[in-house]
Amino acid sequence: MYNTSAGIVPGKINVHLVPHSHDDVGWLKTVDQYYVGSNNSIQVACVQNVLDSLIPALVADKNRKFIYVEQAITHGFFALLSFDFLLEINGGMCMHDEAAPHYIDMIDQTTLGHRYIKEQFNVTPRIGWQIDPFGHSAVQAYLLSAEVGFDFLFFARIDYQDRAKRINEKTLEVVWRASKSLGSSAQIMTGISPKNYEPPSDNFYFEVGDTSPIVQDDMNLFDYNVPERVNDFVSAAIAQANITRTNHIMWTMGTDFKYQYAHTWFRQMDKFIHYVNQDGRVNALYSTPSMYIDAKYAANESWPLKTDDFFPYADRENAYWTGYFTSRPALKGYVRTMSAYYLAARQLEFFKGRNEVGLSTDSLADALALVQHHDAVSGTEKQHVADDYAKRLSIGYTEAEKCPLLNISYCPPSEVDLSSGKSLVVVVYNPLGWKREDIIRIPVINENVTVKDSKGKVIESQLLPLLKDSMSLRNSYSTAYLGKSTNVTPSYWLAFSASVPPLGFNTYIISSAKQAGYESSHSGMRTVYKSQISQNDTIEVGPGNLKLLYSGKRAKLMRYINSKTSVNKLLEQSYIYYRGDDGSKDLQPSGAYIFRPNGTYPIEPEGQVTRVYKGKDHAEIEFTVGPIPIDDGIGKEVVTQITSNMISNKTFYTDSSGRDFIERIRDYRKDWNLEVNQPIAGNYYPVNLGIYMKDNSSELSILVDRSVGGSSIADGQLELMLHRRLVADDNRGVSEALNETVCVFDKCEGLTIIGKYYLRIDPVGEAAKWRRSFGQEIYSPFLLAFTEQDGDHWANSHLATYSAMDTTYVLPDNVALITLQELDSGKVLLRLAHLYEIEEDTDLSVMSSVELKKVFPKKKISKVTEMNLSANQERAVMEKKRLVWRVEGSSKEQPTAVRGSPVDPAKLVVELAPMEIRTFVIEFYSERGSFSDALYRRSNLRRKATFSLP
Amino acid sequence: MYNTSAGIVPGKINVHLVPHSHDDVGWLKTVDQYYVGSNNSIQVACVQNVLDSLIPALVADKNRKFIYVEQAITHGFFALLSFDFLLEINGGMCMHDEAAPHYIDMIDQTTLGHRYIKEQFNVTPRIGWQIDPFGHSAVQAYLLSAEVGFDFLFFARIDYQDRAKRINEKTLEVVWRASKSLGSSAQIMTGISPKNYEPPSDNFYFEVGDTSPIVQDDMNLFDYNVPERVNDFVSAAIAQANITRTNHIMWTMGTDFKYQYAHTWFRQMDKFIHYVNQDGRVNALYSTPSMYIDAKYAANESWPLKTDDFFPYADRENAYWTGYFTSRPALKGYVRTMSAYYLAARQLEFFKGRNEVGLSTDSLADALALVQHHDAVSGTEKQHVADDYAKRLSIGYTEAEKCPLLNISYCPPSEVDLSSGKSLVVVVYNPLGWKREDIIRIPVINENVTVKDSKGKVIESQLLPLLKDSMSLRNSYSTAYLGKSTNVTPSYWLAFSASVPPLGFNTYIISSAKQAGYESSHSGMRTVYKSQISQNDTIEVGPGNLKLLYSGKRAKLMRYINSKTSVNKLLEQSYIYYRGDDGSKDLQPSGAYIFRPNGTYPIEPEGQVTRVYKGKDHAEIEFTVGPIPIDDGIGKEVVTQITSNMISNKTFYTDSSGRDFIERIRDYRKDWNLEVNQPIAGNYYPVNLGIYMKDNSSELSILVDRSVGGSSIADGQLELMLHRRLVADDNRGVSEALNETVCVFDKCEGLTIIGKYYLRIDPVGEAAKWRRSFGQEIYSPFLLAFTEQDGDHWANSHLATYSAMDTTYVLPDNVALITLQELDSGKVLLRLAHLYEIEEDTDLSVMSSVELKKVFPKKKISKVTEMNLSANQERAVMEKKRLVWRVEGSSKEQPTAVRGSPVDPAKLVVELAPMEIRTFVIEFYSERGSFSDALYRRSNLRRKATFSLP
Repeated sequence: MYNTSAGIVPGKINVHLVPHSHDDVGWLKTVDQYYVGSNNSIQVACVQNVLDSLIPALVADKNRKFIYVEQAITHGFFALLSFDFLLEINGGMCMHDEAAPHYIDMIDQTTLGHRYIKEQFNVTPRIGWQIDPFGHSAVQAYLLSAEVGFDFLFFARIDYQDRAKRINEKTLEVVWRASKSLGSSAQIMTGISPKNYEPPSDNFYFEVGDTSPIVQDDMNLFDYNVPERVNDFVSAAIAQANITRTNHIMWTMGTDFKYQYAHTWFRQMDKFIHYVNQDGRVNALYSTPSMYIDAKYAANESWPLKTDDFFPYADRENAYWTGYFTSRPALKGYVRTMSAYYLAARQLEFFKGRNEVGLSTDSLADALALVQHHDAVSGTEKQHVADDYAKRLSIGYTEAEKCPLLNISYCPPSEVDLSSGKSLVVVVYNPLGWKREDIIRIPVINENVTVKDSKGKVIESQLLPLLKDSMSLRNSYSTAYLGKSTNVTPSYWLAFSASVPPLGFNTYIISSAKQAGYESSHSGMRTVYKSQISQNDTIEVGPGNLKLLYSGKRAKLMRYINSKTSVNKLLEQSYIYYRGDDGSKDLQPSGAYIFRPNGTYPIEPEGQVTRVYKGKDHAEIEFTVGPIPIDDGIGKEVVTQITSNMISNKTFYTDSSGRDFIERIRDYRKDWNLEVNQPIAGNYYPVNLGIYMKDNSSELSILVDRSVGGSSIADGQLELMLHRRLVADDNRGVSEALNETVCVFDKCEGLTIIGKYYLRIDPVGEAAKWRRSFGQEIYSPFLLAFTEQDGDHWANSHLATYSAMDTTYVLPDNVALITLQELDSGKVLLRLAHLYEIEEDTDLSVMSSVELKKVFPKKKISKVTEMNLSANQERAVMEKKRLVWRVEGSSKEQPTAVRGSPVDPAKLVVELAPMEIRTFVIEFYSERGSFSDALYRRSNLRRKATFSLP
Repeated sequence: MYNTSAGIVPGKINVHLVPHSHDDVGWLKTVDQYYVGSNNSIQVACVQNVLDSLIPALVADKNRKFIYVEQAITHGFFALLSFDFLLEINGGMCMHDEAAPHYIDMIDQTTLGHRYIKEQFNVTPRIGWQIDPFGHSAVQAYLLSAEVGFDFLFFARIDYQDRAKRINEKTLEVVWRASKSLGSSAQIMTGISPKNYEPPSDNFYFEVGDTSPIVQDDMNLFDYNVPERVNDFVSAAIAQANITRTNHIMWTMGTDFKYQYAHTWFRQMDKFIHYVNQDGRVNALYSTPSMYIDAKYAANESWPLKTDDFFPYADRENAYWTGYFTSRPALKGYVRTMSAYYLAARQLEFFKGRNEVGLSTDSLADALALVQHHDAVSGTEKQHVADDYAKRLSIGYTEAEKCPLLNISYCPPSEVDLSSGKSLVVVVYNPLGWKREDIIRIPVINENVTVKDSKGKVIESQLLPLLKDSMSLRNSYSTAYLGKSTNVTPSYWLAFSASVPPLGFNTYIISSAKQAGYESSHSGMRTVYKSQISQNDTIEVGPGNLKLLYSGKRAKLMRYINSKTSVNKLLEQSYIYYRGDDGSKDLQPSGAYIFRPNGTYPIEPEGQVTRVYKGKDHAEIEFTVGPIPIDDGIGKEVVTQITSNMISNKTFYTDSSGRDFIERIRDYRKDWNLEVNQPIAGNYYPVNLGIYMKDNSSELSILVDRSVGGSSIADGQLELMLHRRLVADDNRGVSEALNETVCVFDKCEGLTIIGKYYLRIDPVGEAAKWRRSFGQEIYSPFLLAFTEQDGDHWANSHLATYSAMDTTYVLPDNVALITLQELDSGKVLLRLAHLYEIEEDTDLSVMSSVELKKVFPKKKISKVTEMNLSANQERAVMEKKRLVWRVEGSSKEQPTAVRGSPVDPAKLVVELAPMEIRTFVIEFYSERGSFSDALYRRSNLRRKATFSLP
């Protein structure tokens, strides 16, 4: 009846109608509620309706198109279909956030989706479709778009000032070259929507219940309106064409959870295509981003160049979406912990053999993928949805493990009463490719304990007091979540230094000193809090090169001294809070998304611990923030400030999704003349790995244990926002104040956050090593497994130490193993990441190489296939298909980036250039490694070892 | 996947799930807007969505059911289907109202739908489904249900006190014997919903966007809730079973404009049927009212008896839906006028031959059917929808006719300047089966005019002054609707008595007296307003038997005297208004639906005309009401009161849909002990034909020209509500105050209503004749056609007088021909109605007979088939299929009603018992009548005659 077969018509404005539904995998409702369509009183949204109604609509007319992003919510529904276009965009399990997720999580969730789509449907997505995230990271552009083989990245949300300028200058479509190191080899053609991801005006919404005028083309009825509606369409098309290069424009025909009865949209679009093309002024067609970008490419245009990223995002004056960088710090911390655990667990799963009974990381993989969603780890979901994400992570973790509450110092195995003659066996696993020494802290009841290494030798250990705050928190939370308080209460942290080979483990035995035949001599114990009190009322803290000087009764940090590097700096550390604006001025309060401070107030700290370890030249600051009081009706956002007298010249650096560091200049944007209306919120950036500043002589770096927001609001000063508790909703849809509480029975109080950050000052130019190497250690802490033994039962029956790699081999200092995973096929997925950018470090910003034979010494590699980043196609195939875009002004062309050479199948050496991540599928000649044998040498163990989180 | 095949299970509570959508053919949106789904900002409703989504849902599972009422809105959509159950209910073009429509309109619209369904789908509906109308008429029960062959009538809205008692006594299901005359031969099994026509609780709505909990039966997702939902279902079923006889209960699964994505409902009902039947406590099944009532019938139960009707309806205290009896009196008047016109026009169409070019009544038939809808002629639609209905009537009328504004005295042909030598030819058609004399009034410019009959003889005529009010209204409305004021202004009504044979016409020629050779003698003219002024300041009005006595300066009616019948009664006539309650007490204002008076106030009348014609023993009162002032912010409802000193003993009588008269007793209901909280509104009843009261000596009757509300609030007094203008919405959905205005350019004022009612006092027992015979004349006035002639052109070329019937024959006084219509098949539909109830009139409440041969003297009848009322099946077939229900208490059984015998094909005489309506399809041996020949004897006429409305 309607002619919907239009293709592209040269010489006309071509309106690419791209039907889509934006189906968040959780936001106001949980992902399952969205799927089945329950809880509709919160939001009318049912993905099952979308899917059910889509199929007949697409079958009814083969010209129709539709694109679908969120694989996590489809439950394999599209298996019924052979519509490739459905799957051409993103293809990850979710549309991940770009501020809060770590790049490893972004890769993992994308890989999970991409490989699923490839295996199920043989489809390779070619379009990035980040229409909703609240700002866009460099890593998204060059890693998660260019390196997965996308030809186009499309999104909607950018700073309102930036957008205005781009509209004015027709620069909404750009070539984005986001990596300094990889340059044009990892650039991506990028389109920014002129407005949002919805139809071009209020007049083109066709959901059941939408109020846009339908095209009434039945002359037998009243209100025939074809001419008016065609005019509406043509006007909107011309308006958009006027701000767009080439004569192709794209209309995103849909929005959140639309197409619940897909027919309603297609019926109207059918009519528009039919009548608009009859009219002939413009050409309308069913299209996809892929068809759109191919048409753009065919136009052979040159495009403006864009570097760096699109942070921070403000949708209007005083509305900077920089609060969510910190919102829900507990969830963000949980996600980071699980991310690290997942990385390590996959290694163990591989060593053990994926098909054997025991560990399975699949459920955790799914949960972790889901929680990368831009309303999940971002902290911008409703409370019940945040709870749902945490539950999913917990289930995923529990499927393999027990003892999930160790992270708040509750761990029954380690609290066993050793006086009864039992020993505690601690197996310490190191998921890094480097040999590593690190402090292990375990809560214990007994004072008289000794630690022996795997050879039976007593090693140095310390007893540290448990903070009263931690103890009460521990009791409170175990009552809240376990429904009971614990019957034994640990008194101390037992701390000792463990040394573990790369991809390997070592074993330590903790037993009663008496039982072990030792007096309670506390031999070699030293408590860090026993410090030197010098003249001038200062306290000096630090057992090694690094000394921190504190002064006065309140023990205020004064100075940072490293005797080895000769750094000696004035340094203060303090806490302040911002009052969250209540919106009384202009209805824009501070909220889950938006940071809008209204005044700065100091906090006198209590319950903070600063640790300085022997052999570690950084300070570890453990903070306890909360419950944040809101009895005064005022929301508060707690920030730590590190203040030096460095002349940082408005400049500081923050990482992009945990990877590249990007220069930030206060009150300044490279792409436009910033009109400053929020001098604090407008200078906040996401921090996943760290933040630093420098002057002529030194660099002050802070690394974090989870994603937070950070900035440098004054020269010489860095700050991190640690926690937020607010009383108003910020009017971006979530309709809840960000007010996290914990309830014990009927009594609720604000959530308390315990976290850490790490601080170090280096001579200028020498800081990258710590940021990169220690950053990797923060991300991948030791993994601990506990068991009990009577006598020497365990030690005698188990291998005490092990490395998966050749014992003579470690990975180069500038390379990290970020994925080692056995695939369902039995093949192995390996990802190696160069950790340094070009020019970042004199020694380490160089080509590096990894010897695969030594990484897998006990197996024989039969085949190595280099893949794209998401491992859904061979890298060579991807490179061959890639569209090459022209950039305006030849002077902006960079020399081609250096990259590692293809892997010689004989040598099996992988070269990695700065910032390069290489992904391989490795096949082995069949034989099993001995890891699981090592752990399970006998079958009559009373208790299976489980790996837990330190 | 789900087992939906359940049938009835004996011994269990059977929950009949009846999926349905209640799709008003106009209410808040126009019928077309509802169909295509435009104007969704007013109401989310799109019937196309319902229809489009229904088919795949029904095809997907043959166990699913659905019922659909409104044929007017389906546009033949179901032609695609073979699901009989879709069409088993109502089957008319709309779900007609039961208060405002005349029974002839109800029959016509039902016939239109029933014959369409029969022809297109070969389906005969068996269920009446009046779920939404606001009260239920006796005529609906015995005529539009029993006589069309329904086995069950189901509805929802009855008085809240009545419902409470019925719930308590398990008497929601009854045998309704609504006709005194036809008794058990026209009774109908009737079901009243325990609540409304929606699902049993808020928990069972499944439209896209509804918030009822869906059945979450996927164990892989969170929130699995099958046990809870099954419990919800079982609880609701048991609750309803507890108030219902037999173990069958019906759930109306739907409501207004639901099933816009039918799948969403069926998916949930599939699950309920599956899991509830697995549970086994009750039995759930897809069903239809037909399956339901067959199950009830099989139970062989005896049922309570109900007589009379279900008026008035109150849904709660102080909320009597008796305002709508009068709401939109102009629309109600227009509908009545069009109804009469349609009846006459079909006669002409038949005489002329339907297949010839010229008149077509099809469009008017459709419009008239549509406007019987319970939010159309009821006056309870939004203003723009009322406008749409009027437009449709106007288009329907215009398709055959011109000059639609004669009813406000604007008619160019009759206002031709006769001084130019032309004459005006008036052809007067009488659609009644009786010979008839009646006064014709035509506006004229000239004073010097004469009227000649068809033989050229000058007959008596009168010039009556046009009221100033009428003139200014005429000018105002012609400017409003034609965009210009008229260029000639009539000065007088020219009145003369026309005498016309049954189903025939006569011709009158109006010409200038001068031209016609007469002096301006005004011979025989008499103006009714020139009256006798007697002593005592009284004025006596009346040229014949009837005299009205007026007294005082204000000419107040004092006395009614009929010299022939010796009736001599004190009689007052006055106007009052009720203040419409503003809802400030309890949020229940007076509005389009609800009449809620708050105080009674007198009105001094101006601009009223009372006419008494020679030879007519009744008074004709023409009222002009409006604009009703609301500047004081108070809505007003204008009422006329006729006050006598009769001792009426709380009792009065109103017709049911223009047919049977039902006894009404003030502040009393037969079926329950009425708790009186609205002593005025709660005593209002719909009046379509008339209202009367009586005492020992006399009967005072009032007949109306359209449907209105009426009552007797005090003994000896009758009142009619003539017009309403209100300032508040009454909270029943329409969301507009009933405030009709007319705008001339930018100036708007309240709508003015001009109407008539007729009053007569008879000796007791002798009043029915006038009510019935003159009532028929009011309904079917003369139809006038105008043309001009030069000299005697027309008269010489046309037949001047004609009767379709045998010239020696007229119908009996107690029989009316209510349908004479050529069907598409060429056959003829004939309906004859006995006009009297049993015991209504000594002479006329008797068996009567009609000789068909004399009705069709010029044709030869080949076959007569008696049909059911809606002519979609043979009467004999219907009688054979009819279910016979048992009534509680044998003493309530009546003797079988008397009915006419089957028609002897040789004699062709139709017998009619009191209140009997008999419907026939008549076939003729092919030959054409001469009517069209008579009118169009020559083909070179300058102007085609058109029939217009006096």
